[in-house]
Amino acid sequence: MTQRILLMSSSRKDNLGYLEHAPEQIHAVLRREKRKIVFVPYAGVTFSFDTYERIVKPVFEKLGYELEAIHRSPDPRKAVEQADAIAVGGGNTFALLERMYDAGIVDIIREKVKSGTRYIGWSAGSNVACPTIRTANDMPIVQPPTLRALGLVPFQINPHFISGKPVGHNGESREERLAEFLEISVPEQVLALPEGSALLSDGLTGTVLGERGALHFVDSTTTVNIASNESFPLARIKGPVVAEGWPDFKK
Amino acid sequence: MTQRILLMSSSRKDNLGYLEHAPEQIHAVLRREKRKIVFVPYAGVTFSFDTYERIVKPVFEKLGYELEAIHRSPDPRKAVEQADAIAVGGGNTFALLERMYDAGIVDIIREKVKSGTRYIGWSAGSNVACPTIRTANDMPIVQPPTLRALGLVPFQINPHFISGKPVGHNGESREERLAEFLEISVPEQVLALPEGSALLSDGLTGTVLGERGALHFVDSTTTVNIASNESFPLARIKGPVVAEGWPDFKK
Repeated sequence: MTQRILLMSSSRKDNLGYLEHAPEQIHAVLRREKRKIVFVPYAGVTFSFDTYERIVKPVFEKLGYELEAIHRSPDPRKAVEQADAIAVGGGNTFALLERMYDAGIVDIIREKVKSGTRYIGWSAGSNVACPTIRTANDMPIVQPPTLRALGLVPFQINPHFISGKPVGHNGESREERLAEFLEISVPEQVLALPEGSALLSDGLTGTVLGERGALHFVDSTTTVNIASNESFPLARIKGPVVAEGWPDFKK
Repeated sequence: MTQRILLMSSSRKDNLGYLEHAPEQIHAVLRREKRKIVFVPYAGVTFSFDTYERIVKPVFEKLGYELEAIHRSPDPRKAVEQADAIAVGGGNTFALLERMYDAGIVDIIREKVKSGTRYIGWSAGSNVACPTIRTANDMPIVQPPTLRALGLVPFQINPHFISGKPVGHNGESREERLAEFLEISVPEQVLALPEGSALLSDGLTGTVLGERGALHFVDSTTTVNIASNESFPLARIKGPVVAEGWPDFKK
């Protein structure tokens, strides 16, 4: 299997700059080979796509890769078809998925990546790589046609994972929100990625990058740590029951 | 206009017990009159509807009101039709809305409340009282048929409002999430309710209850404080553009 994807928790770790923690993670999937990356800035809502490109482009150029945002192309589908790699940035996951469906690029990205085009996502860009966006942390500011997404990995990821809640606050903690997902979506499980962590995958095996490792939410009361640099078969983390090629997640 | 609704931010404030901060808020809408409340426990996911009823029933009985959870009735639509008041509890807003549509009670609750049946919601129960659930804080663990909801108030509420984010965490703060909503949903605005606060409304005027007041998010960079016990015309806070009786929130 030739699929190679990198799903990062976040664009920032601690007080570091934009993707400043991630050069080695990015090289691990792009292999220092000459590549022209198409960048999908659709998750950006409070700033323009131009601005988003201005933030991301220098990061990748410094690492030796070309990058252009997809909104520069008159035909986004064609831009994806011609890409050597696809990068999808963070922001609002609902806006991102809605705009991806609007642009008609969901199926094309899925097919391209399954046949070997590199995919890099962070935050919202990692959420849309999952079977659905049902483990996103974002506010549902728009209604995409469906919560189904790219399905580049067979299970759900929770990015920006953080344990507990502010003292005195009674809203649900992240663990409580994930417990609700696990309870209502049996047998689905979740890979939670703290900020700075990432999942590198070839379609069969996953490797957790980043010093903080990851957390496998097995069910609403059980979690298992996955260490930094630990590899595991993707099938270890249960995904949705797939009906007609798509997760039947209403069950 | 006879509509009388109470939309509370949360079931808990600080370290107080379940709705322990809210007796006066509840009396303000139920007026100490004899009422049989139908309780909608559908937002509960990690515990049973029976358990949820066992938590909520004594709270209302202590205040002098009868309460029964809707799942005890073989016909939830009939239960709503016969109710003197409707209470909708917190939990997961997506599960709540999905189950309300499944039970076929969305339209009936809306009509009943518009003609005077008291409505009390907290947390998820306040989210579904808005035109849509697009300002909920919850994880989208299931996909309801639509994000459109009861529309008992003409604008969006954000419950459990809390400012800022944990030190060292790079996920979006609540203000940042709301800024995304305000940016993508112009001209819509938001009433943010800190824990312990509530909106009491007769359909034309709103009064903010609870010592912490509320915050009117005018646009992505402007907020205006609303003081405790301050009344204001509901029309002051802009809602969605309504097309064919429903907000056209894709625009």
